[in-house]
Amino acid sequence: MSGIFITFEGPDGVGKTSVLKQLMPRLQQAARRPILETREPGGSKIAEEIRQVLLDVQNTQMDHRTEALLFAAARRQHLVEVVNPALAADKIVVSDRFVDSSVAYQGAGHEVGEQAVYDLNLFATQGLTPDLTILLDAPVAVGLKRIQQFRQDQNDRLDQETLAFHERVRGAYLHLQAQYPQRIIKIDATKPLAEVVTNCFITIQQHWPQDFTEEIV
Amino acid sequence: MSGIFITFEGPDGVGKTSVLKQLMPRLQQAARRPILETREPGGSKIAEEIRQVLLDVQNTQMDHRTEALLFAAARRQHLVEVVNPALAADKIVVSDRFVDSSVAYQGAGHEVGEQAVYDLNLFATQGLTPDLTILLDAPVAVGLKRIQQFRQDQNDRLDQETLAFHERVRGAYLHLQAQYPQRIIKIDATKPLAEVVTNCFITIQQHWPQDFTEEIV
Repeated sequence: MSGIFITFEGPDGVGKTSVLKQLMPRLQQAARRPILETREPGGSKIAEEIRQVLLDVQNTQMDHRTEALLFAAARRQHLVEVVNPALAADKIVVSDRFVDSSVAYQGAGHEVGEQAVYDLNLFATQGLTPDLTILLDAPVAVGLKRIQQFRQDQNDRLDQETLAFHERVRGAYLHLQAQYPQRIIKIDATKPLAEVVTNCFITIQQHWPQDFTEEIV
Repeated sequence: MSGIFITFEGPDGVGKTSVLKQLMPRLQQAARRPILETREPGGSKIAEEIRQVLLDVQNTQMDHRTEALLFAAARRQHLVEVVNPALAADKIVVSDRFVDSSVAYQGAGHEVGEQAVYDLNLFATQGLTPDLTILLDAPVAVGLKRIQQFRQDQNDRLDQETLAFHERVRGAYLHLQAQYPQRIIKIDATKPLAEVVTNCFITIQQHWPQDFTEEIV
């Protein structure tokens, strides 16, 4: 594959969705080759069906290992149907979440074990690793406050978690960043949104100066 | 856990369903403690939902690794909700299929790799292994002929396979039996049904003479 695979990671409430919404048009404009913006399970009927099982609020009996297996299954299918074909066609793929999310959420948050969840996902990805991962980081209290403010209407099962859970998730992300400092770039998400977006843009542009033009400010 | 965990395995068409139908009442009568007869994903709403995704004939795009992950997810949930509680309550659990099926079908049949599928299932089972597995074995031609005769009305996706596929599945089962001769007992399924059923009964009864009375013939 000769495409470029970029993933965005971070705990809930860190502003990932808002950042991507502002960042993507800028990336699209600067890119010298096609960009595919995606998120699991986007664009795959089977992966979407799996996601339905995962997000069903009725499924309070779901075991955390079952959850990890289902995320890996949805990831695999999304990879086969969406990501791999785009990378094979030399595109730039920007994905909202990937394996690191499972390591952080199921591995650390739900305490299934980070290494076990990583190994499980190796089965799903056959070793495909992002070329660059942007980790949006903020103290847990900041993220949880944003969740309370902006997501009061949501009530899916995955949001019914505790403060300790979110601390474990953030800890796992920081641990991954320390393990893979070349691949994972941490960006301070407590700064104003415009600044966070610009920092993301510059990180990507400087990584691939041939593939993204500099912005004219 | 102090229960007894028995699984039945074998390629499609080998007569497993017919054998279990005649065997179970005899086991129930001979058993000195409660028997739970089950099959994945029986008795678990979540596992049943996963099975729906797996058996959907529309899902012809499903990747074989996705399939292996979904079977492992359904297995995990069935284990947590049904099998483990029964074993913890000292019951005898008789399951129609377990991990060996995934190793044979996804690992060998679909060529995902027997060891990879075994390792994946270790994540799902956390090492729980049957105390005894009865492998019903017959040449592939015999099994496929039975499928043609008895299952003409069925058309689920998993049956749309080739002769070579079934040879790989049988080969994997025989390989597992050679690897784990203490756990897996092979029974010749080409013999008349009544004889196969009696052979299964005797195998189990002799394994646990304290827990099953001999039959009065």
